[in-house]
Amino acid sequence: MQTLLLSVLMMSPGDHNTLPEWAISEPDNRLKPAIQARIDQKTKPLGALGQLENLALQIALVQGAPERLALDRPLMLVFAADHGIAAEGVSIASSKVTAQMVMNFLAGGAAINCFCRANHLPLKVIDAGIADELRPAPFALINQRLGQGTANFAQGPAMSRTQAIAGLRMGDTLAAGEIAAGSRLLAFGEMGIGNSSSAAAILAALSGARDAADIARCVGRGTGITAEQLDKKIALVQQAIARIHDTSPLNVLMEVGGFEIAQICGAMLATAAAGQLILVDGFIVSAAALLAVRINPRARHYMIFAHHSEEPGHRLILQLLDAKPLLDLGLRLGEGTGAALAWPLVQAAASFYNQMATFESAGVKV
Amino acid sequence: MQTLLLSVLMMSPGDHNTLPEWAISEPDNRLKPAIQARIDQKTKPLGALGQLENLALQIALVQGAPERLALDRPLMLVFAADHGIAAEGVSIASSKVTAQMVMNFLAGGAAINCFCRANHLPLKVIDAGIADELRPAPFALINQRLGQGTANFAQGPAMSRTQAIAGLRMGDTLAAGEIAAGSRLLAFGEMGIGNSSSAAAILAALSGARDAADIARCVGRGTGITAEQLDKKIALVQQAIARIHDTSPLNVLMEVGGFEIAQICGAMLATAAAGQLILVDGFIVSAAALLAVRINPRARHYMIFAHHSEEPGHRLILQLLDAKPLLDLGLRLGEGTGAALAWPLVQAAASFYNQMATFESAGVKV
Repeated sequence: MQTLLLSVLMMSPGDHNTLPEWAISEPDNRLKPAIQARIDQKTKPLGALGQLENLALQIALVQGAPERLALDRPLMLVFAADHGIAAEGVSIASSKVTAQMVMNFLAGGAAINCFCRANHLPLKVIDAGIADELRPAPFALINQRLGQGTANFAQGPAMSRTQAIAGLRMGDTLAAGEIAAGSRLLAFGEMGIGNSSSAAAILAALSGARDAADIARCVGRGTGITAEQLDKKIALVQQAIARIHDTSPLNVLMEVGGFEIAQICGAMLATAAAGQLILVDGFIVSAAALLAVRINPRARHYMIFAHHSEEPGHRLILQLLDAKPLLDLGLRLGEGTGAALAWPLVQAAASFYNQMATFESAGVKV
Repeated sequence: MQTLLLSVLMMSPGDHNTLPEWAISEPDNRLKPAIQARIDQKTKPLGALGQLENLALQIALVQGAPERLALDRPLMLVFAADHGIAAEGVSIASSKVTAQMVMNFLAGGAAINCFCRANHLPLKVIDAGIADELRPAPFALINQRLGQGTANFAQGPAMSRTQAIAGLRMGDTLAAGEIAAGSRLLAFGEMGIGNSSSAAAILAALSGARDAADIARCVGRGTGITAEQLDKKIALVQQAIARIHDTSPLNVLMEVGGFEIAQICGAMLATAAAGQLILVDGFIVSAAALLAVRINPRARHYMIFAHHSEEPGHRLILQLLDAKPLLDLGLRLGEGTGAALAWPLVQAAASFYNQMATFESAGVKV
């Protein structure tokens, strides 16, 4: 562990106790009219492709209004980690299931594998700190362990400042490497028993929820807990929020975050800094996205939101981020499944922008 | 024309003035518990894949609870035809655009081509009766012309009883052939300037709308007409509805239908009769689906609804058919675009049913 941490910190120069700075470009809004004109010349009534037109416009803006939108080397990154809060019984499963599901991912048997295969989206799995390190180390598992799961955030900070910053840097380094290898879009997924508690607490802290009712609105049933478990989950989040006075994103991440959330957040910031697209999954990945946008608001321009999950807090995050996702299928699984399912819609938006005839080229005279 | 009609009628035995009978099986609901148990053993919380679980259940029921759901040889059939009502100026474009867009389909430049290509869905285009027959006959265009567009339904019946029945039979024969060639799912799209007026009138007639306000609720802006054009469109539909007293599906099809709608309806009934799946696009294709379900209610079991379109009448049809579509992207283009975009979600439902590990096989112990 120690060696790994050190090596990562050596790869990412800078004070390991300071939040890195991500230089993210503001897309050039002066390009909008030209992009819109291009979309409006396609052989369809104005606006008839609805949300896909907005998506094509967003991608074209991010990519500087090219002749051809590029979605090369798309990749799904699934970060797994454990959460100390799981010991409180706020999930339907024990922390052991995180490692079991990671093995399921590596064997190709989980929902995320099925959807990535069906939609031709390659998948990588990262151990960001599951409770029990898998031994022997599975060949295909990327080891970026920040510890054996976080501490229980109901009792104190989930992680140290050093761990939070190391997590952001590890995600940053991983994403930067994939982009250097040619990726123009990174999709994010997660696995971690207890992480909907962490996401709820992040949302509560960052949205300024202070009273009990506002905090309760951020907390949901996750994978399907009982009403009694939900009451306990709400009480634990309220307990954590009560001690958080510094609601800067780094402090919130330390106090109630997760190792996978830290790494996803860092990876998103690196993706935006490289001018590439981020495909956001459900509640937990959206909490990481909210942290990223609080660290650097320009990151928002690069984010495509895949779906509305059933988790009630997800709608609040989407509102805070002014996001209208592509799908609303009542999913509540995580893993990146919503993002993998939305990926063909992203490709469809690029396909009409790139390939569709214009009224002139097709000889269509309305 | 005459020769073609005759040859089709010869291929489909039966009185050419009688509605064919489609023998459609009721899926065996006793299979439901076994299918649900299979879905519930997958490595995910119960119900966590939301609407995709309902879709997998529907497909498994239709296919008799097989070990493996089959979606072989999927095919998009786009039927094009013209409408006499277009002469009233109820569309943003003239009837000439129907033929121009058919040429665009055949050249691969339309939205439906882009989405079919992106999602690996083969496409066939049928001339069901566009105003100007394309000469020389394009090689790839399937000729099933029922005439040079329908008559203006504001003034009298859109087509004869013979034409309506021939259209149903032509669609039936085409779909039966594709299914004989191995197709397990047929998706339907359409092109026809004026056909949202026809779909609105079908909906008004079949939903029993009699007063002006109820009829107006069925009519929308189609591809984007002005408020003035919309008022005229509503008045014309009201005028047609006033003369329709026999609201049997065949009579409604004759009075206010379209050649493409007749053929889509017949093709859907053949698909259901062959026990295969129907992927329904937007407002116009849903009007054909409503006719099909009124002809034989069992056809409904075989229908998957792709999307909510922006056309207000579409929501009314979806309510009548108790349908919850997969997508809601604000599309209002037709052509089959919503169905082509939803196709990967249908594949995803089959992929999790077919490939996902069970708790036992993956060694996941919740």
